[in-house]
Amino acid sequence: MLIVGERINTSRKQVSEAVVGRDAAFIQADVKLQVESGANLIDVNAGSRHDTEIDDLLWLIRVIQEVFPDARLCLDSPNPDSLSAVSGCVGHVPMFNSITGEENRFRAMAPLIQSRECDVVALCIDDRGIPANADQALDNAARLISGLEGLGVKRQRIYIDPVIQTVSTNPNAALTVLETIERGRLQFEGVHFICGLSNISFGLPKRQLLNRTFLALAMKAGLDSAIIDPLDKDLMGTLRAAAVLVGQDLWCQSYLGAFRQGIL
Amino acid sequence: MLIVGERINTSRKQVSEAVVGRDAAFIQADVKLQVESGANLIDVNAGSRHDTEIDDLLWLIRVIQEVFPDARLCLDSPNPDSLSAVSGCVGHVPMFNSITGEENRFRAMAPLIQSRECDVVALCIDDRGIPANADQALDNAARLISGLEGLGVKRQRIYIDPVIQTVSTNPNAALTVLETIERGRLQFEGVHFICGLSNISFGLPKRQLLNRTFLALAMKAGLDSAIIDPLDKDLMGTLRAAAVLVGQDLWCQSYLGAFRQGIL
Repeated sequence: MLIVGERINTSRKQVSEAVVGRDAAFIQADVKLQVESGANLIDVNAGSRHDTEIDDLLWLIRVIQEVFPDARLCLDSPNPDSLSAVSGCVGHVPMFNSITGEENRFRAMAPLIQSRECDVVALCIDDRGIPANADQALDNAARLISGLEGLGVKRQRIYIDPVIQTVSTNPNAALTVLETIERGRLQFEGVHFICGLSNISFGLPKRQLLNRTFLALAMKAGLDSAIIDPLDKDLMGTLRAAAVLVGQDLWCQSYLGAFRQGIL
Repeated sequence: MLIVGERINTSRKQVSEAVVGRDAAFIQADVKLQVESGANLIDVNAGSRHDTEIDDLLWLIRVIQEVFPDARLCLDSPNPDSLSAVSGCVGHVPMFNSITGEENRFRAMAPLIQSRECDVVALCIDDRGIPANADQALDNAARLISGLEGLGVKRQRIYIDPVIQTVSTNPNAALTVLETIERGRLQFEGVHFICGLSNISFGLPKRQLLNRTFLALAMKAGLDSAIIDPLDKDLMGTLRAAAVLVGQDLWCQSYLGAFRQGIL
């Protein structure tokens, strides 16, 4: 599993305060914890601060790379201009989060994606909205993959996000995503599947319980990357247990290693 | 999900002491907790007390039925003679745990199964041992189902147990069982699938984490019954979350009910 640590997001109050106060130590300490907990990439999101997003992203990228020059970053913004303005400052191959099949959004993201080698998170949304079933989601995925390949992106750099809805209003929400991943893995060889988890439980109590249970099911379906909080010990425990069970952790090496480190 | 509560088992020290001391109140209190926590059947197992198994089972059945005349019991013994000796004392349709495809065992269990209407747990073991893959397990299941139908057992009273091995020595152990359940559900319409969980994690730390994560995956594959400890709150939480996610708990009614009762 590729783990994208989601904590550096200004929609979190403490992160927003650290960004406003230019508290580099806070950000660096948080990133350190994420890396130690298993994050492979660090998501950086200042989208909640519209007016200063570019400056904030530039500062965040700088303070993170200062201490973790090898860290891979996932630049996360709804605004292609913000991503374009900061892309050049990222040392290693960045991940851009995200493109969609909406015509305007795809067109706006295209120059950025062609400007350098990058991973791309592609949401299965098009101008008709969120797909109603796996057929529609896979149809969206097929057009996104073909569009991205047309821009020169290699398959192994494409991360399809099937877009999760909540089970509280759509009883098929989880099954639709699982079917999309399962069929998508067969249909689109080499392409990755990624999810944020938390939408699945919107409007319900004990959300983390639903989120981590869903993560296990999605890993069985073929999810190979996730945007999560690697400091959530229960979530990471479920991830490590699921990895053992679905054959992603041969001879339980990673599971036993985490146990010995006391982080299971 | 049909939940078979596994706690009344003399291999547990406290239960064994209660059985030796004929402490009916202890047994009745434990069964009450299991029923309140969601058990649909109560497993009764005195197999660890070879010499007194029949007397102990008779006593257990009596003290449970005294307080819970409507309780359904799962009579659990490796010894067909023990099951035959106590079967007549069970008020409601009993579940017998278990028959296998081993020729001697099947023949020894046959008269009991024909003696009254009953549910039967059928383990996918035959004289060649534990199946090495899903094909073998399904082959065993097919012969067990046909054998049981030959004894007059209806399909909806058959509970196939695919027999779990540990992932610590067999990295495919979980995947094999999941495949067996998934294909078995399609192949044998009307038949149930049941599991004990704990074998999956034998030899590993944090066994309950692996067990409950496996339960979620097995429910997605089509498991519709399990022999578990309904007092394990984390396990039952995972079970309730998985039921929501795989469409077994429409509009989250049972999940929200458990939350309101404070047992989620």
